Amino acid sequence: MENVPYKIYLTEEEMPKYWYNIKARMKTQHPPFINPATQKPCSKEDLQAVFCNDCIEQELNETDEWIEIPEEIRAFYKMFRPSPLVRAYFLERTLDTPAEIYYKFEGNNTSGSHKLNSAAAQAYYAKKQGLKSITTETGAGQWGTALAMASAFYGLELDVYMVKVSAEQKPHRKEVIRTYGANVIPSPSETTEAGRKILKEYPGTGGSLGCAISEAVEKACTTQSCRYVLGSVLDHVLLHQTVIGLESKTALDKFGVTPDLVIGCVGGGSNYGGLIAPFLGDRLQGKSETEFLGVEPASCPSLTRGKFVYDFCDSAKTTPLAKMYTLGCGFMPSASHAGGLRYHGMSPIVSQLYHDGYMNAVAVTQNKVFEAAVKFAKCEGILPAPESSHAIAAAIDAALECKRTGRKKRILFGLTGTGYFDLSAYKQFNDGTMQDYVPTEADLQKGFDTVPRCRVNEDLL
Amino acid sequence: MENVPYKIYLTEEEMPKYWYNIKARMKTQHPPFINPATQKPCSKEDLQAVFCNDCIEQELNETDEWIEIPEEIRAFYKMFRPSPLVRAYFLERTLDTPAEIYYKFEGNNTSGSHKLNSAAAQAYYAKKQGLKSITTETGAGQWGTALAMASAFYGLELDVYMVKVSAEQKPHRKEVIRTYGANVIPSPSETTEAGRKILKEYPGTGGSLGCAISEAVEKACTTQSCRYVLGSVLDHVLLHQTVIGLESKTALDKFGVTPDLVIGCVGGGSNYGGLIAPFLGDRLQGKSETEFLGVEPASCPSLTRGKFVYDFCDSAKTTPLAKMYTLGCGFMPSASHAGGLRYHGMSPIVSQLYHDGYMNAVAVTQNKVFEAAVKFAKCEGILPAPESSHAIAAAIDAALECKRTGRKKRILFGLTGTGYFDLSAYKQFNDGTMQDYVPTEADLQKGFDTVPRCRVNEDLL
Repeated sequence: MENVPYKIYLTEEEMPKYWYNIKARMKTQHPPFINPATQKPCSKEDLQAVFCNDCIEQELNETDEWIEIPEEIRAFYKMFRPSPLVRAYFLERTLDTPAEIYYKFEGNNTSGSHKLNSAAAQAYYAKKQGLKSITTETGAGQWGTALAMASAFYGLELDVYMVKVSAEQKPHRKEVIRTYGANVIPSPSETTEAGRKILKEYPGTGGSLGCAISEAVEKACTTQSCRYVLGSVLDHVLLHQTVIGLESKTALDKFGVTPDLVIGCVGGGSNYGGLIAPFLGDRLQGKSETEFLGVEPASCPSLTRGKFVYDFCDSAKTTPLAKMYTLGCGFMPSASHAGGLRYHGMSPIVSQLYHDGYMNAVAVTQNKVFEAAVKFAKCEGILPAPESSHAIAAAIDAALECKRTGRKKRILFGLTGTGYFDLSAYKQFNDGTMQDYVPTEADLQKGFDTVPRCRVNEDLL
Repeated sequence: MENVPYKIYLTEEEMPKYWYNIKARMKTQHPPFINPATQKPCSKEDLQAVFCNDCIEQELNETDEWIEIPEEIRAFYKMFRPSPLVRAYFLERTLDTPAEIYYKFEGNNTSGSHKLNSAAAQAYYAKKQGLKSITTETGAGQWGTALAMASAFYGLELDVYMVKVSAEQKPHRKEVIRTYGANVIPSPSETTEAGRKILKEYPGTGGSLGCAISEAVEKACTTQSCRYVLGSVLDHVLLHQTVIGLESKTALDKFGVTPDLVIGCVGGGSNYGGLIAPFLGDRLQGKSETEFLGVEPASCPSLTRGKFVYDFCDSAKTTPLAKMYTLGCGFMPSASHAGGLRYHGMSPIVSQLYHDGYMNAVAVTQNKVFEAAVKFAKCEGILPAPESSHAIAAAIDAALECKRTGRKKRILFGLTGTGYFDLSAYKQFNDGTMQDYVPTEADLQKGFDTVPRCRVNEDLL
């Protein structure tokens, strides 16, 4: 085989010392958050009541291309990074493609995904600010696990509002979070006003991410020395995830490889944004012609079938409004197995990039995703997360296209995590009982009807 | 902190090209397998009916110190190796010890453990021999998963006889095995004579490892172009696992570190034997004074409370007799959570080394093991397997002893795998309902009564 090793691990000296702020290179900035009460841009003070100060600074920073990673966070990163950049020789052989396929694997840590990259940073900033505790919500559980790990490391208390039906269906995820010393509160709960209200209106409900967010925010805002922490969507989360792209780029640069195509799965958009950012920075400076592809589930197609408007970030309509591709904050995706991609909206940065034509997007159905996952597992060894397998499916398609055209493209994709807690989904696929779900136009319209009709959206809706 | 990085990854060129055969350096060889029918040493032909030819060559090789790893296996190893050698800076800080602690982490692959090191080799040799299929048994499921991964890679059919109660309690493990294309047969089953006999005698039984072994061996011996494959205990399995020790030694050598103490958990003994082999080789040549410690569960204390006699390798008494430390092939360990360490016997190599005074052993109770596991998880990030956590517990004890004495020992331990499929055990610990079980002298006597009273044991029992 060729000169590139199967896996490229950077040395610790080669690991990034700065995050990459793609906004400093973007020709058009995404519009600011809007306070739904005043319909005016959110002030720093609005945000400080909820989020940690340093995270807000990063959120609003549009000018500094490089933002230093504090020494303490870099030490924590060394616990689970660098992650390997893998040359998928075995997948190439299986597909019999002339394409070169590379993937960056973020699953080799106990959270099982890339989520720890931002959890490590956000928990550190909370500790630095002198806070005693933080709150968050979790659905599938990767984010809750990652934040529990980071909170244990820094000695912070953590309340995780876990969607009740997830806490019941994924007792093992819940147990990992508990093992790291965090409190898991099935949501809706009696511990908040928002929770009690929902429980009264819908007794016996299994909860929702929207409701869990409302509870976590309320708990943070009503607790002394406490803030709320979010695992995707926001600019500072995407910033922390640029370690994925930066490590990938350094590793590929060592072998003189510039990717022709970079592929990632998109839910909230932070892993994808973090993966593509440094490569996109090069393209925006005319240094490369790399193309970018976001892959979303056909069941929740915010980029390919959504609208680019202002919408709430949660379904309970308690957050600021963000300008993004959205299916409507009230859109109810089907119970697909890619829990991490079941979000109605999309990172404002990724949305702006898509709107401005810097990337493409494609939606894939569930059975096709699992076909790709099993093919990949059998030749590359790793059992991938359903979310990550969206990127695998698109990478396989691109490699097979190369086989047809004879073009030797260099394809890089992000393998965000492992599927060890998704085996009931694999069972459905193995049993041949997995359903594909694609929303009808009527389903979408129901979602769009929940987009707020307000001044900032007047020209858009 | 110091000059040694947090994690040392070898380059692919630095990975071992040879396994290390410690028997070539041992002053006393362990006695041969005995055919229980003839009471004479097993011939190569006896073994060839059951095992692959190349594995038998390795099993019987007492002279070659280095045995080449075929190119194809080295390519497969690159899929999931090198594994990191980690300097446990965060654990050292937590313990406030002057000791240096290092661990070799084998859990970063989908089997979740070191088992893939031997599965990769054994499946390759089966394929090379032109076989169509192989069989095995699995209890906790790591071995079954590893062999399913290797069989998928080489295109071999695989039947995994999985202890019925495990298949029911660990449906997710079973599903991983299925995803890699292997057949999972809950044992006892109707597919073999042995299974049917047990089912008739004990209708509704949950099965046992002994019974699953009998079924897998019978299936292999009665199927065209098929052999049986075992995941521990035997010399060739230990040989394959020396990649653990070899990589560790190369990594430490780079920084001029010679360990004072090497610690591993012991069940069948293969991971431990593979970890210590190259370090022990140095000591046997007078190049070092490294000490060795095997850690076993107090519930199944074959080294610390067993007898060094000839015994069956399975509880159904169908295998050859091996001279080893054993609790008796009929010993029934309690339902502890370290499923991988619930074996009545011990690798003949490890047994001989222990008998000859080259290593120490200690037994640890379950709650102490999980205390160590949680402490480790919180500061080092990785959620360890219950089996591996036996080594952690002993390493922490050794580091705290250094704190008392002020001695700066260099401690290396083997972290064999992750605990992602052991969360019900963690739940028990977190809930404070975990029981410690230590067999009484009467319990042990019941086990010893099942050791065969035969000529080879006459002087020993």
